[in-house]
Amino acid sequence: MTPTAGVREPHALTGRGQATRARILEHAAELIYVHGVHGTNNELLRRAAGVSGSQLNHYFPTKESLVLAVIAWQAERVLTFHRGERFACFDSLDAFRDWATHYIGYERAYREGCSLGSLASEIIKTDLDVHDELASAFDQWRDIFRDGIARMRRLGRLRAGADPEQLANLVLAAFQGGMLLAQVARDIAPLRDALTAAIDHLQTFATSPGDV
Amino acid sequence: MTPTAGVREPHALTGRGQATRARILEHAAELIYVHGVHGTNNELLRRAAGVSGSQLNHYFPTKESLVLAVIAWQAERVLTFHRGERFACFDSLDAFRDWATHYIGYERAYREGCSLGSLASEIIKTDLDVHDELASAFDQWRDIFRDGIARMRRLGRLRAGADPEQLANLVLAAFQGGMLLAQVARDIAPLRDALTAAIDHLQTFATSPGDV
Repeated sequence: MTPTAGVREPHALTGRGQATRARILEHAAELIYVHGVHGTNNELLRRAAGVSGSQLNHYFPTKESLVLAVIAWQAERVLTFHRGERFACFDSLDAFRDWATHYIGYERAYREGCSLGSLASEIIKTDLDVHDELASAFDQWRDIFRDGIARMRRLGRLRAGADPEQLANLVLAAFQGGMLLAQVARDIAPLRDALTAAIDHLQTFATSPGDV
Repeated sequence: MTPTAGVREPHALTGRGQATRARILEHAAELIYVHGVHGTNNELLRRAAGVSGSQLNHYFPTKESLVLAVIAWQAERVLTFHRGERFACFDSLDAFRDWATHYIGYERAYREGCSLGSLASEIIKTDLDVHDELASAFDQWRDIFRDGIARMRRLGRLRAGADPEQLANLVLAAFQGGMLLAQVARDIAPLRDALTAAIDHLQTFATSPGDV
């Protein structure tokens, strides 16, 4: 992430300062996830995190600096989750199905949507200078899927006709679009359908009909 | 659409009143599409539409009433476009490919995204009481795809294993998610990939390998 003028970077803080900054950030991320960027103001955040206005201003002098930090925080969580052992670098269809099952069973999906995608959608048209951070986060996310699919192809689990980049974009788009449609419908079905069908499409490239 | 208290419904207006209301609405839709709901204020709208504050207030007494009308206006445009002769009720894969080609070639896709989806994403977490209108619009949109796929199946163009509702959700989710990813990446590639792969998946259910 590019440092932003005026932001206190965590590495320059004392242990206590880092803890305060982390507490503010965690509450900001939760408030923004539930109420959106526009529905989250300094007063709500000060109360939730139990900090004064001057403390808040010390760590995050502008709304942009706070939103940038929340994007970095949410991106870190999403990417760490996807890079975890559970999904074994997405080198099998089972891993993709396990991943889909996780989100289909995640009740906040149809209330608050994707923690990163819903934030991106809300602010993409604003003047906040957060574009590079968002683009970098989504690029890394898609690359996790792309690298997994490329590996499956190298291992002979998928046929050579499988295009890793295209299929990774399908999976991530189905996820983001499914999250939006689930929120709008207040029903998980659109997300479930979109992810199931996207992974079924991956399966059409499998070299063996069973598990790969 | 459910009438909202205090809104002047178009049918109760004189011809001149209807024209003024339509002009305000068209400018509001354009401003919201470019700048978002939060980036559009009364002053911008008054200037763009060339109306006074009291005129604006007469037709749209609250921001909610304006946003509701813009949702209805954008939904009407999107649904009319999809129901047009060009796509022949989406009863062939060619129609789906033609539709995808249209949006892949639409330069505003990666600047402003989907006129309805980007609006929905921006306001879904706000207190604006617009949920039913959004849900109804997306339901109708998905049903256009679902009915087309069901018809292809009845006509024997797709195998019985094709699930119209699931595949319609895939196509719409790929579209919405692809639009978001294209906006974030400032590149049409994620939308192109997602739509191409979603329709390739439809194609896997085709009963004949050629055009259906």
